[in-house]
Amino acid sequence: MITGTTRLIAHLGYPTGSFKAPMIYNPYFEREGIDAVVVPMGCGAEDYPAFLRLVFRLSNSLGALVTMPHKVTTAGLVDTLLPTAAIAGACNAVRREPDGGLTGEMFDGEGFVRGLLRKGRPVAGRRALVLGAGGVGSAIAASLAKAGVGALGLYDIDAAAAEALALRLARFHPALGLSLGSNDPAGFDIVVNATPLGMRPGDPLPLDVARLDAASFVGEVVMAEEITPFLAAARSRGCAVQVGKDMLFEQIPAYLEFFGLPSTTAEDLRSVARLD
Amino acid sequence: MITGTTRLIAHLGYPTGSFKAPMIYNPYFEREGIDAVVVPMGCGAEDYPAFLRLVFRLSNSLGALVTMPHKVTTAGLVDTLLPTAAIAGACNAVRREPDGGLTGEMFDGEGFVRGLLRKGRPVAGRRALVLGAGGVGSAIAASLAKAGVGALGLYDIDAAAAEALALRLARFHPALGLSLGSNDPAGFDIVVNATPLGMRPGDPLPLDVARLDAASFVGEVVMAEEITPFLAAARSRGCAVQVGKDMLFEQIPAYLEFFGLPSTTAEDLRSVARLD
Repeated sequence: MITGTTRLIAHLGYPTGSFKAPMIYNPYFEREGIDAVVVPMGCGAEDYPAFLRLVFRLSNSLGALVTMPHKVTTAGLVDTLLPTAAIAGACNAVRREPDGGLTGEMFDGEGFVRGLLRKGRPVAGRRALVLGAGGVGSAIAASLAKAGVGALGLYDIDAAAAEALALRLARFHPALGLSLGSNDPAGFDIVVNATPLGMRPGDPLPLDVARLDAASFVGEVVMAEEITPFLAAARSRGCAVQVGKDMLFEQIPAYLEFFGLPSTTAEDLRSVARLD
Repeated sequence: MITGTTRLIAHLGYPTGSFKAPMIYNPYFEREGIDAVVVPMGCGAEDYPAFLRLVFRLSNSLGALVTMPHKVTTAGLVDTLLPTAAIAGACNAVRREPDGGLTGEMFDGEGFVRGLLRKGRPVAGRRALVLGAGGVGSAIAASLAKAGVGALGLYDIDAAAAEALALRLARFHPALGLSLGSNDPAGFDIVVNATPLGMRPGDPLPLDVARLDAASFVGEVVMAEEITPFLAAARSRGCAVQVGKDMLFEQIPAYLEFFGLPSTTAEDLRSVARLD
């Protein structure tokens, strides 16, 4: 129950209608007796820079979950950008430090990597291919790099976007082997679709599935359906897969840790969420 | 449960620790299936003017409950000040109009008057004495005037404060009979203590109780204890009384109406509140 001592996690985005975080975090906070609440705040782009500053000056503010259309803007508004957010060029979480400064981080990719690790798939030293160098692809590439992949292939139909991502990655991970310009999955241990392909019926697959090794682990960010055509094709090749929604739930423990709150497993959060 | 469609009532003040409104409104909203939530926001005075504007630009904002130390400031920040708030010189509620403008109102006095009416005590045409011309005294005087009292006595140890209140009242209620300079309750149908006297043990009584008529109705704003020494003395004179907390609960239906929400009785709100 909300009282005068409850700390706020502002869920900032616009529009708010499809927000899911309140129904995931708040039931967990309630069960655990954590005196915090996620509150959707439909903030437009023109008000966002000023509002972000002011909402963090509230005496009971704890943090912010940032979503569309503010993720990229936020990277330019915080005082400290952690490396993963700097590589992604976007933030989906902000907290206030004891000195009043704002720190931004990006957990989309962290959710992807945690999902892999929890499924018993090692990441350190492995070879990963990320298709799509937009916001979520950049975040996944950044988190794979942080988790210690040995080699990273980047591909985007906009070659300049992939090149820009490679430059950002190289700045923070100078020893990482980067390759560009191919969506051929052969030889990669981890293959991720972070393109929008699969969101609409009739979309082409993001790569030539016939080139997928059965030993490759295949992940997806599209959540339009649990098993997208791409994941179905990868499964039929014998690959283990990770669905888009896993990334969503796997990142929440990372957010909780970032905010200094007691954390739990993604499975536990999923079991207590009230998404229906 | 809070979702992406939930509308926000910002509870603005500082500090927030003693806020009670969330535990009164939110259980009622939950029981009634009203998709709204009262959220405490500890906003400091220096941030308040900018924050008030921005919080009302959120797409899901519904209104604001305003408390210490912002009630007087708010009167200077809204676009439209309703007469009761103008007389009180303070607002404790703000809503956004369809044109985007902010309207401010003051319900402390409304709660007092509603409490009287619900106890079967008529107000229209009666003679009332208000002791204390500060924020809450001014609000009660304004609401008594709006409710049609025939004559109003005002008293404050700071005579200038009572005179200023009289001028504000006269502007909106030119026909109202006003008297100043005496705290003698003899001849008044309604007598209100809106001074701080009674908040601390050993405070003197705000008037000479021996001059109270048994037929007078005596009200109190101090909530330090249910029956203050002043109310106890009035009762021993045979007077019917209204305790401070009644004012608190009686004003909530007025807030709900102001925000365009389904309303109920103060008793019902009290029964569903979770204040323990």
